[in-house]
Formats: sequence, C-alpha cells, structure tokens
Amino acid sequence: MEKEFVFGHQNPDTDAIGTAIAFSYLQNKLGYNTEAVALGEPNDETAYALKKFGFKAPRVIKEAAPEVKAVMLVDHNEPQQSVSDIDKVKVTHVVDHHRIMNFNTADPLYYRAEPKGCTSTIVWKMFNENNVEIPEKLAGLMLSAIISDTLLLKSPTTTDEDKEAVEALAKIAGVDYKEYGLAMLKAGTNIDDKSEEDLIDLDAKSFELNGHNVRVAQINVVDLADALKRKEDFLKAMEASSKDNNYDMFMLLITNILDSDSEALVVGSDETKALFEKAFNTKLEDSEVKLPGVVSRKKQVVPPLTDAFNA
Amino acid sequence: MEKEFVFGHQNPDTDAIGTAIAFSYLQNKLGYNTEAVALGEPNDETAYALKKFGFKAPRVIKEAAPEVKAVMLVDHNEPQQSVSDIDKVKVTHVVDHHRIMNFNTADPLYYRAEPKGCTSTIVWKMFNENNVEIPEKLAGLMLSAIISDTLLLKSPTTTDEDKEAVEALAKIAGVDYKEYGLAMLKAGTNIDDKSEEDLIDLDAKSFELNGHNVRVAQINVVDLADALKRKEDFLKAMEASSKDNNYDMFMLLITNILDSDSEALVVGSDETKALFEKAFNTKLEDSEVKLPGVVSRKKQVVPPLTDAFNA
Repeated sequence: MEKEFVFGHQNPDTDAIGTAIAFSYLQNKLGYNTEAVALGEPNDETAYALKKFGFKAPRVIKEAAPEVKAVMLVDHNEPQQSVSDIDKVKVTHVVDHHRIMNFNTADPLYYRAEPKGCTSTIVWKMFNENNVEIPEKLAGLMLSAIISDTLLLKSPTTTDEDKEAVEALAKIAGVDYKEYGLAMLKAGTNIDDKSEEDLIDLDAKSFELNGHNVRVAQINVVDLADALKRKEDFLKAMEASSKDNNYDMFMLLITNILDSDSEALVVGSDETKALFEKAFNTKLEDSEVKLPGVVSRKKQVVPPLTDAFNA
Repeated sequence: MEKEFVFGHQNPDTDAIGTAIAFSYLQNKLGYNTEAVALGEPNDETAYALKKFGFKAPRVIKEAAPEVKAVMLVDHNEPQQSVSDIDKVKVTHVVDHHRIMNFNTADPLYYRAEPKGCTSTIVWKMFNENNVEIPEKLAGLMLSAIISDTLLLKSPTTTDEDKEAVEALAKIAGVDYKEYGLAMLKAGTNIDDKSEEDLIDLDAKSFELNGHNVRVAQINVVDLADALKRKEDFLKAMEASSKDNNYDMFMLLITNILDSDSEALVVGSDETKALFEKAFNTKLEDSEVKLPGVVSRKKQVVPPLTDAFNA
C-alpha cells in the first residue's frame, strides 16, 4: 500500500505530535502504510513528553506532495493550519476535535471529529473499537497529549471521556498522571530563553473570521506578572508579525496553568479591537485585558470571536 | 435534554429516511432527545421499505429553526442539500458517506464520515461500538437503505463492511436480502404514473463545481429503452428547471438496476456540456450519451465532473 503521511497542525503542540504518532501506529496496525511527520519542531513541553516515553521527534516536513499522494490529518482541518501544499494532496482521513472550516474534498473520506478535550481521547476510543492494544510508551505519549490540551483535566473543554482515557492510559503507561502531568506542563512554561518573536509563534493559529485574518497565539506560564514585564516587546512583535502576514488582528493569550487564568494582549485595527471587546464584553486598556477563567482558545476564544465578527 | 431533529437530504431516498430513523433511535438510547424528520415525502421504493417493516413516514419539515435549536444530519453535509434554514440552527452531529463541501461550523461537533456504500453501514457500526441492540424492524429498514444505495451490493461504492452489515442486518430482520432487495428496488422503478417534472426532481442533488451550479438527478428503471421514449419531454423539463433554478448544467442519469448500466441526458451551456464530455471522455449526441457501468453519482459522476470543472 502506498505510503501516506500523518501529521498535526503547524506550530505543533503535544496533541499534534503525540496523536500523529499514535494514529499512525493504529493505522499501520489496521493495514495502512503511514509515517508520522510534523510541521515543526516540538516545543519544550512536547520534547519533555517525547523524551520521557522514549520517542524521537517526528521528521519535520515543509511540503507533502513531493513525497506522498495522500495524507491523514490529526488535530486540525482548516487548510491554513495545515501543510503548505495541502491542496496538492488527497486527504483520506481526519481525526479532530475542532470546528470544521474551509475543509472541502472531491471524494468521500474518513472523518472522525468529536467535541472532546483532546484528539488523543478520540484515538484512544478508536484503538478500543478496533481491539488494537496500546503499547506502554505510546499510552504515555497519548496521556501527555490529553494532559497538555486539558491542562491536567482542568480546562472547560474536558469531558468525561477525557478523564476515562487519562485513567486508562496512565494505568497502561504506569505513571502517576498528576505528578507527571504537572512536571510536563511546567517544562513548557520556561519563556526566559526565548525571544518575543518566537513566543508569539510557538502555539499560534490563524482563523478566517468573516473575511478577517485573525491570529490567536497562546503561551503557558506559572507567573503572569513576570511574563507581562515583556508586554511592550510582545506588542511590538505582534505588530510586526501582523504587518508581515496581513493579520487583521493578533491576540496573545498568556495563561497561568496553576490557577487557570489568562491575560490577553491584542493588536489590530480599531474595528477588530472593537469586535474583540464585544466578543468578551470587556474593555482593552493599553492593548491588554484580564480574561479570568479563560484557558481554551477553541472553546472560550474562537466561538465568541466568531459570533462577534459575524454579527 | 432539548429536542434535536435528525434528518437526511432534500429529495430523500431510502438511506436519507431509513438512516435518520435508525440514527435517531441510537442517539435516544445514548441519552439524546431526538425526532427523525424528513425534507420530503418518501419515494415509492422508500415507501415500500417503510411499509414492509412497519414504519410510518417521518413528518416532513420545511424549516428547522421554528422548532429546534440544534440538528443532526445524516447522509449529507452540503448546505444546499439540507433544510432551507440550516444556517439558523446548530449542527451537533453528522453521519455521512459523501465528500465534505461548504460545511462550516463555529463550534466543535461530532462528525463521522466513512467512504462506505451507505450511511446505514456506518450507523450499524456505531450501534455495535456502543453495544446497543438493533430491533428487528429497524434492522430491516437499515438493510433496505444499504440495498438501495449499493443496488443490492453491485454498485462500485460497495465495501466489505457494507456486505458484512447486510448479512448481519438480514439475519436480525429475518429476511432473504436478495429476494426482498430486488422486490424493493423494483418498487422504485415504476415511472409510468409520474410526470417528467416529478421524475427529474425525485432523486436530484445540487453541486457547486468551481462556481457552477450543477444539478444531477437519477432515476432507476428496469427498461432503458422504454424510459428513453420520453427523452424529449425529459429534456424540456430539465431546460425549464435549469431556467427556474439557475442551474448551469442539468444531468439526468437513467440507470438500469438489472444490468447496472446508465444513459445520461444533459442540458446546459456549450461550456458546461464540453466539460461534461471531458469528464467522461465521451461525446453527447443529441444531448444523450451511454455511460456503461456507471451507477453511482457519488463515486462515478461527481468526482470526474469536479476534476473537469476545476481543471
């Protein structure tokens, strides 16, 4: 069978990379010929999880079409979040937990989306449905993905099935998921050795909102005040990136993983900033606003922005 | 829990109606509150299947929003094939076996697509995955849907899982599927008592192909020559419908279910007719052409048309 790539979104996180490895393993067991690849290098948190469970980082690809005719997507579907030449390959499978947007195909395909906290929770169900055993180390990697996406089951995106998956995968992997999970999340919060330009791009996604090109980036920290000392430099980097990439709005969500609160920085036109304020029923002060309890871009940021931009 | 509608596409066939009833039953067992409805009256074949297994035709709705806030779609996803006010309700679930096109949501949802011959095959898998027993009569209805969509497992869309599902469902329903299936298919081939206007609308779907509005209708018969005696009247009806609905091309596929061959009638602009000829590498003669072995709109008509219109 001809080889297909399996990969997650650009600026990959632990779900994008861990679930690509897990889904590729499952599909190969089911008779496909796949290779898990990535659209970028692992971040510090993902590197910590890969090392802990003995995986090498997947090979980074810039284009798919020179090597394969068909691909399988995990943890994303929107073309602008995918590989640069996604329009040149056929998508045969998608496993995802996001909204569906601008995803069009010429042929029928396998598409499995569920509104769960993490794509690995859905892949865990698929292992069970197909009676495929999950190896110990792979269970650890899938566990890491769920801990990452749900901030240790504390994000409002967390469902009962995410909790079940975490319990089951922690048992297979033989780890105390609370202890391991906190260590893994903390490994992703060191921002001191990174430039503002890098930090606003590490976990950033683009969304087309009613014709507007909107960028939403997120950084996890353990000390908000410490991160906000770099506010002016973050804003400069966001302005520059918006100019270079034609973003109509750039929002940076800085999330304290210990108490699940966020501070948002926003740059953009007066129009888009007004839409941001309407979306969150708040007022930006000097490009900044507190968003208490907001930790999920998917569930707490994109839907209100979508509503505000479409109103 | 607030009620949701479950329904298939406009101009419903046995899959659209039968699978809506089956998926609604499954979802209610899983704790949802749903009602299976339809976007049109059952055709003769579907009426035969409903009667055989003791079901009433689902209530026909024109709009969803006056009654519910959320809906579940089966056997379609393209907005122009769905309820007229689909943009006013939230889609929470989709089960489908078609390409994905122009289907966009603000929020994550359940989406289950597989390239199987029939949506009921996927729903049969979901019953099994969730350990929900399929009642005898419902098994008969799901069996009818698979027989209808796969022309008794002879269409090239047929997969091994469709065959497994037919065997399993026929056993539960207690019917000889070959004997019952042929009788059901024949019940849908009586075109004598219907006008050309009705016949070209019974099983018709619209597709947006690179900015062109393309209509593809299909009729099942047991005698092609007999059906083609009405060719001039079919063409007149297709021309009139194209004018009323701004179709750039109208294709009618007349399929002999006994030998799995089709004859196509095509009206449209010179440009779209040329694209049709390119898609099938053939020449229309007096708006007509033989398409030997072509029985599946989804697998044998839409993909080559899509390629030709996009080239």
